[in-house]
Amino acid sequence: MTVPLPIHRPRADRARQVADVLRQAIHAGAYDEGLPAEQQLAAEFFVSRNTIRAALAVLKSEGLIDRGPKVGTQIAQRKYAHGLDRLLGLKETLTGHGEVRNEVRAATQVTAPPAVAHRLRVQPGQPVMFIERLRYLDELPLSLDLTYLTPHIGDLVAAHQLETHDIFALIEQVSGQRLGAATLALEAIPADAHSAATLQIPDGAPLLMLERLTRLDDGQPVDLEYIRMRGDRITMRGNLIRSKQ
Amino acid sequence: MTVPLPIHRPRADRARQVADVLRQAIHAGAYDEGLPAEQQLAAEFFVSRNTIRAALAVLKSEGLIDRGPKVGTQIAQRKYAHGLDRLLGLKETLTGHGEVRNEVRAATQVTAPPAVAHRLRVQPGQPVMFIERLRYLDELPLSLDLTYLTPHIGDLVAAHQLETHDIFALIEQVSGQRLGAATLALEAIPADAHSAATLQIPDGAPLLMLERLTRLDDGQPVDLEYIRMRGDRITMRGNLIRSKQ
Repeated sequence: MTVPLPIHRPRADRARQVADVLRQAIHAGAYDEGLPAEQQLAAEFFVSRNTIRAALAVLKSEGLIDRGPKVGTQIAQRKYAHGLDRLLGLKETLTGHGEVRNEVRAATQVTAPPAVAHRLRVQPGQPVMFIERLRYLDELPLSLDLTYLTPHIGDLVAAHQLETHDIFALIEQVSGQRLGAATLALEAIPADAHSAATLQIPDGAPLLMLERLTRLDDGQPVDLEYIRMRGDRITMRGNLIRSKQ
Repeated sequence: MTVPLPIHRPRADRARQVADVLRQAIHAGAYDEGLPAEQQLAAEFFVSRNTIRAALAVLKSEGLIDRGPKVGTQIAQRKYAHGLDRLLGLKETLTGHGEVRNEVRAATQVTAPPAVAHRLRVQPGQPVMFIERLRYLDELPLSLDLTYLTPHIGDLVAAHQLETHDIFALIEQVSGQRLGAATLALEAIPADAHSAATLQIPDGAPLLMLERLTRLDDGQPVDLEYIRMRGDRITMRGNLIRSKQ
C-alpha cells in the first residue's frame, strides 16, 4: 500500500528531517566556516525559513551550533570520531587532533566483585587492578574511564605512565601480545550529577556509555572497561556487513 | 609510576563503580527476579550500604530500576540488544521478544536536499522516497526512523506493507539483491521536545541517534536512515577486532 502523501506535515516533523541531515553535514565538515543564511538553507531543503529556524533550534539545544544576530550560525564545537571498526585507544584514535592526557583518579588493587571476576575469568575475591581516568583532549574532558585489569598484567600496567599512555598500548607492551577481540555494549544514558560535574556537562546530559571486555590475542580476557563519553563530543563510526543467509 | 592507593574516594565515585557493574548485570538478566537486599549487595561489592543506596539511586534516575519500601528493588524495564555486528532490521533483531509494528507517519516522494542526493548518489533535485516510521515493540515505542530510498527501489518498497515489514527485507525482495555493507555513525543526543513526545519520553532524555547508509551487494547506496532509539530501551552490542599492524 502507499500512504497518501502528507501535504501538511507538522513543522516539527519537517524541522527534524532538516536537523538530521544538517547534523551529519556539520560533522562531515561542510560548514566549518559557518552555516549559510536561513534563506539559502530554506532553498536547499525546499522548506520555509520558519522550518529552518526550528531545525537550527534543535541543533542549538544539542550544543552543536551557536546562533547570534550579528555573527550568524557557527559550529559551537567539533565532535570527534571514535572507531567502531577497529579496537583503538583514545590516543591512537585522536592522533593529529590534539594532546590526549589522562587525569589518573585511582590506580589501586581492589577485590573483584563476582560480576567483574566472572568476566575477567579470575577467582572471586582475587584482587584486580582498578584504574579510573578522566581523559582530556587538550583542555577538554572527553570521557571518564573505569578499567579493571587482570592481576599480573594490571600490576605491570599500573607501574607505567598512565597520564600519557593508552592502556591498550601498555597491555601490549607488558604482555608481549597483541590485543585480540573485544565485546562491547553501547548505550545512551543521562549523566548522574557527579559524573556530569566531573565531565563538565549539565546534569542529565546524554552520555555514550560503553562497556567493553577486551581479550589478548590468545583469547584470555584482560581488560574490562566502563567508559562514559560526552555525547556532545564523541561520535562512534564504523561499518557493518549484512550476514549471508 | 603507581598512584598512591586512594583510601578515601568520594562515595559518588564508589557508587558509580558499583552502578556500572550492576547495570550490565541487570542487562545480562542476573536480577530478573529483583535485586538482592542492600546488605547482600554491600557484601558482594565490598562497600557500605550507603554506597549501594547511592548506586541504586543512579540506576533509578536512569529509569532502569524501581525501588519501594515494600517491594524492594525491581527491574523497571528491559533493554533490548541491537546488533552492531550484523546488519539486521529491527523485526529480525527482536524475533521472540514481541511484535514489531510500524506506525507509518510519512511515505512520499521528496526532492532530495543536496546532502542526501550526494550520499545516495542521485542527481540533486531528483525525487527520492522518504518514509518516516514510529516503531513499536508491542505497545512500546522503541525508535523513530527517517528513511530516504533511491527512486526506483523506493517506489517499489513503498508499495508494500510498511506497517509490518522491515525496510531491509523489502529492499532485498524488490531488488532481488542481498544488502551489502553499511556505514554508520552513532551518537548520544538529547531528545528535542517533539521527538520526546512522539517517543513518549521526557524532554531532553538521551537518545541513541544512528545515521546509517546501506548499500546493495553491488556497492550501490540504496538506503539512508536517521534513527532515534530510546536510550532507556536499546543497547547496541557487537564485537571489535584489533587491527594487525
